[in-house]
Amino acid sequence: MRFDVTVLGCAAALPSLNRLTTAQLINIHEKRFLVDCGEGTQVALRKKSSKLQYRMMRIDHVFISHLHGDHYLGLPGLISTYNLMGRTRPLRIYGPPELEGLMRLHNQVSGAHLNYDLHFVSTQTQERTLLWEDATLEIYSFPVKHRIATTGFLFKEKEREPGVSHHAVRDLGLEPSEILQLKKRQDLVRSDGTALAWSSVCTEPAPPRSYAFCADTMYWERVVDAVQGVDMLYHEATFMAHHKALAVKTYHSTTLQAAKVAMKAGVGRLLVGHLSARYKDNEAVLAEVVEGFPRAEIARDGVTYSVPFRSL
Amino acid sequence: MRFDVTVLGCAAALPSLNRLTTAQLINIHEKRFLVDCGEGTQVALRKKSSKLQYRMMRIDHVFISHLHGDHYLGLPGLISTYNLMGRTRPLRIYGPPELEGLMRLHNQVSGAHLNYDLHFVSTQTQERTLLWEDATLEIYSFPVKHRIATTGFLFKEKEREPGVSHHAVRDLGLEPSEILQLKKRQDLVRSDGTALAWSSVCTEPAPPRSYAFCADTMYWERVVDAVQGVDMLYHEATFMAHHKALAVKTYHSTTLQAAKVAMKAGVGRLLVGHLSARYKDNEAVLAEVVEGFPRAEIARDGVTYSVPFRSL
Repeated sequence: MRFDVTVLGCAAALPSLNRLTTAQLINIHEKRFLVDCGEGTQVALRKKSSKLQYRMMRIDHVFISHLHGDHYLGLPGLISTYNLMGRTRPLRIYGPPELEGLMRLHNQVSGAHLNYDLHFVSTQTQERTLLWEDATLEIYSFPVKHRIATTGFLFKEKEREPGVSHHAVRDLGLEPSEILQLKKRQDLVRSDGTALAWSSVCTEPAPPRSYAFCADTMYWERVVDAVQGVDMLYHEATFMAHHKALAVKTYHSTTLQAAKVAMKAGVGRLLVGHLSARYKDNEAVLAEVVEGFPRAEIARDGVTYSVPFRSL
Repeated sequence: MRFDVTVLGCAAALPSLNRLTTAQLINIHEKRFLVDCGEGTQVALRKKSSKLQYRMMRIDHVFISHLHGDHYLGLPGLISTYNLMGRTRPLRIYGPPELEGLMRLHNQVSGAHLNYDLHFVSTQTQERTLLWEDATLEIYSFPVKHRIATTGFLFKEKEREPGVSHHAVRDLGLEPSEILQLKKRQDLVRSDGTALAWSSVCTEPAPPRSYAFCADTMYWERVVDAVQGVDMLYHEATFMAHHKALAVKTYHSTTLQAAKVAMKAGVGRLLVGHLSARYKDNEAVLAEVVEGFPRAEIARDGVTYSVPFRSL
């Protein structure tokens, strides 16, 4: 079951020729979620659209971390493009409360009549909040600490039940009620008095995976708590360690702070992004991160990162 | 004296991988003007910024034709980027009255404190209006006909005076008052009684050039009047001729209508853009335009077009 993150943009503040501002396309079990939507996101999505799995239209949920322009200014254009492309499926947009008024004002001044519904869901920065769930997946926002109201997002697979072998079902003539009991890891005593250990006919499911997105934020213990044990963490590292004072002043993190969050939270893999354009040497930036947390990489536009299984 | 137009984007409505939405950088005598600012304009400007003459910061005037997203959604990001780049020079923005509130709302929700002033000047769609002038140049808005309030823009060099030969000034010992009279194309009788024909010591200046930008608009006689005799006209041609009904319905123009405006207005050169993405064959589109007006080209992103002298 696929669970991956395509970085569409990971520049800090200013887009460059190689890096767009922040946006990520997350694919979990072929459900697609857009996290942040910096200027140019729709073109970045289009680059990926030749591949069936990235079709722009299949995004039904957009999560906006905060209202700095480099994290949402691609959204009014995307909303308009969806309309011109004939979208009829509703689009759910999660973000700070002011986002709805802003997007509706864009539609109003352009005289646009959308042929699909926009549903806005306000995020808040008091505590972790469940934004959406289905049978297999939960998505939360959680507070991070930035100059304006900002949240991170947590994508979590739900625990799966063990799978009962088809052969066992057929050969033993298992009843539906028996199968339900086995899936709960309970041993059976069957109607004929024979015992059946659940582990003899069940296979353990793959462990659930999780991904947390933290941009933009300064170092904060509550972020460590919020991302505890995730399999992959995207954390901003706008500054190198010697610019720590600047990081504090601008409510951003350093390389070592991003690594510290990953280490203290015991995450599986760390992706850092939102690097200041002042650093030309990505290797030097990565060296600092890896010093604090070895399983780290620097995010690159257009690259897809798989969320790993912890036990593998 | 340079007078050219760099097309930064000329897609209709939807950006593609080859075409951004509408934006043009106009350089007249090393003064730079931005006309429209679709999503991604700041990155397109940056591509040109390696050349001194395109430095983004040297733009002091931005003209927005109308509030469809594909013509202004790059503006909030550009305003923010200028701030981060340390801009202190004011930026003047000309556009529909609602534009100011929209841009200020973006700044407000992002908590931005700009270190430079934004001056907004509202355009109107009643009549041609002088927006800005200096000693050598005039810039006007003029009404075009689209689904929402939209203007075109006209850039006109002012008439220049004849130049008096430096040799004549020195050899004849011309007085300042005499030079002024000669520059007005008046012959002199000098204090010693000799006659001096202005044409014997003056050279005629280059004729003034003009450029008109018309996007988006349906065919309208008032546009023909507004662009009468310009040296270069950019006119939209969203549709091919067989989609004329669609053009009328959506307040856009066809290839043949763009050519008709150019022909009736007697322009020097026609650039067409804003072509619908449905047409894959640019040659077929151009063939239709050229049928109606031979000195025509299809605009391409990243290309600089010189405004020609009519007499040359």
